[in-house]
Amino acid sequence: MTTAVHNLVNGVEQDHIALGDRGLQFGDGLFETLCVRAGQARYWERHMARLRAGCARLGLPPPDEQRLHFEVGRLIRQQPHGVVKILLTRGTGGRGYSPPADVEVCRIVRYLPRPVIPAEGLRLARCTTTLGLNPRLAGIKHLNRLEQVLASHELTELHADEGLLADSEGMVIEGTRSNLFLVHQGELITPDLGQCGVAGVLRSVVLDTCSAADIACHIREVTWSELEEAEELFMTNSLMGIQPVIRFADRTLPVGERTRQLQQLVMQAPEGEGWHP
Amino acid sequence: MTTAVHNLVNGVEQDHIALGDRGLQFGDGLFETLCVRAGQARYWERHMARLRAGCARLGLPPPDEQRLHFEVGRLIRQQPHGVVKILLTRGTGGRGYSPPADVEVCRIVRYLPRPVIPAEGLRLARCTTTLGLNPRLAGIKHLNRLEQVLASHELTELHADEGLLADSEGMVIEGTRSNLFLVHQGELITPDLGQCGVAGVLRSVVLDTCSAADIACHIREVTWSELEEAEELFMTNSLMGIQPVIRFADRTLPVGERTRQLQQLVMQAPEGEGWHP
Repeated sequence: MTTAVHNLVNGVEQDHIALGDRGLQFGDGLFETLCVRAGQARYWERHMARLRAGCARLGLPPPDEQRLHFEVGRLIRQQPHGVVKILLTRGTGGRGYSPPADVEVCRIVRYLPRPVIPAEGLRLARCTTTLGLNPRLAGIKHLNRLEQVLASHELTELHADEGLLADSEGMVIEGTRSNLFLVHQGELITPDLGQCGVAGVLRSVVLDTCSAADIACHIREVTWSELEEAEELFMTNSLMGIQPVIRFADRTLPVGERTRQLQQLVMQAPEGEGWHP
Repeated sequence: MTTAVHNLVNGVEQDHIALGDRGLQFGDGLFETLCVRAGQARYWERHMARLRAGCARLGLPPPDEQRLHFEVGRLIRQQPHGVVKILLTRGTGGRGYSPPADVEVCRIVRYLPRPVIPAEGLRLARCTTTLGLNPRLAGIKHLNRLEQVLASHELTELHADEGLLADSEGMVIEGTRSNLFLVHQGELITPDLGQCGVAGVLRSVVLDTCSAADIACHIREVTWSELEEAEELFMTNSLMGIQPVIRFADRTLPVGERTRQLQQLVMQAPEGEGWHP
């Protein structure tokens, strides 16, 4: 039996990257974090779609999906449960911040163990770190993540599983590593991400599930007071799926009907089974 | 004669970094770019001061200045003219965005050739990329630089040497890689960087030079119309010093008196001679 491969850089087994890589120098790149279960990389096509959108936004050539498919397959055949992280950077070169004319993208595929996910639901806290507005970077999953790092750092002292961030104008946007949904006066809502935030793959799954099941979900600005009055709160990301919030702002919340319904609908959907390498 | 050392990682000659380094994963770190002339790293103490401030802001342990001093010395003894880039990252570890409890900072010191600087002054253009507001990240030189990369990318089409960025509220902040000063109705002004932007080392030199020479320099909000009406414009950074703007918004600008005066004062100041390893 051969040793499992953990890291591939441009298809070569390698655990390091050039110092001059623009991913390190400037955070000039993108990433995706995929849930791997029973040898399947879930929501493969949605992750690829976001990666394509990110490349277009940053002016990178489109991702080589065939190679990514092959390389991810190499990792998860040996390690059928866990996480695959894909990183694309603008490679080396250019003058300072200016990108080189001929970009040679650096393609990194890593296998990582699955994080521990609270079984009972999430204790949610409000972070003081805020998100800057930038429509050119909003929605995509780029490598500039200091805001999330600073916000995550707050969680230890807040004794919370996840933290909520507002933007610089005070609108509630998302969690440090997840998207937010709320039920307020019977209405299902998720914050608009046109100015900042990451448009999560599970968020898009929930939105499409709502469409298919004829459940109205409103994408709009969300205020802290709406959150405090909400009947239901849940957070989503690729690794934890739909996670109910059981505590927020000194309130204990029940796992609501809408949350359970969407959990079931998403679980039953065939797409989540994803793609078999 | 031994081959010149170009890269040191934690004191070891090395041209790569671990894939798991948080500098690559999240841009979780800081950098400094120092001008090296005649074997001297100019404005050493000011660069260290900003690095210390950045570490405090990101919750990193303070930089090991003695080691940095020694390592930079190693590089510039062999290469007395050029650029030294220092990077500090939060190293590896942590759960996702959450930083590890015991941080082992990764210390990178690189020698790079000096960039070409336009001899006649700068052609300046207005970028459409804007800067998000985040007081927790404002002023420090962190590794999240996608806004600067996108703005620099605009310069090629704008046929400009440097581009100006406004913040998300429309206030003029800085260049892609330099700070802005203007003379408007006789008043010397530089934008306030409390919400975004990088507080450049040369900017602080100019401000201190003004103080010492009893020249009023106002730090405040700057609008595009003030810029279009300005009598003088100049940009500053560690590598190019004080550079007059000779073209902006279809106007040709003369190199003004204030600009020349400050160039001379800064050039004469003994501190610029910096530190001899």
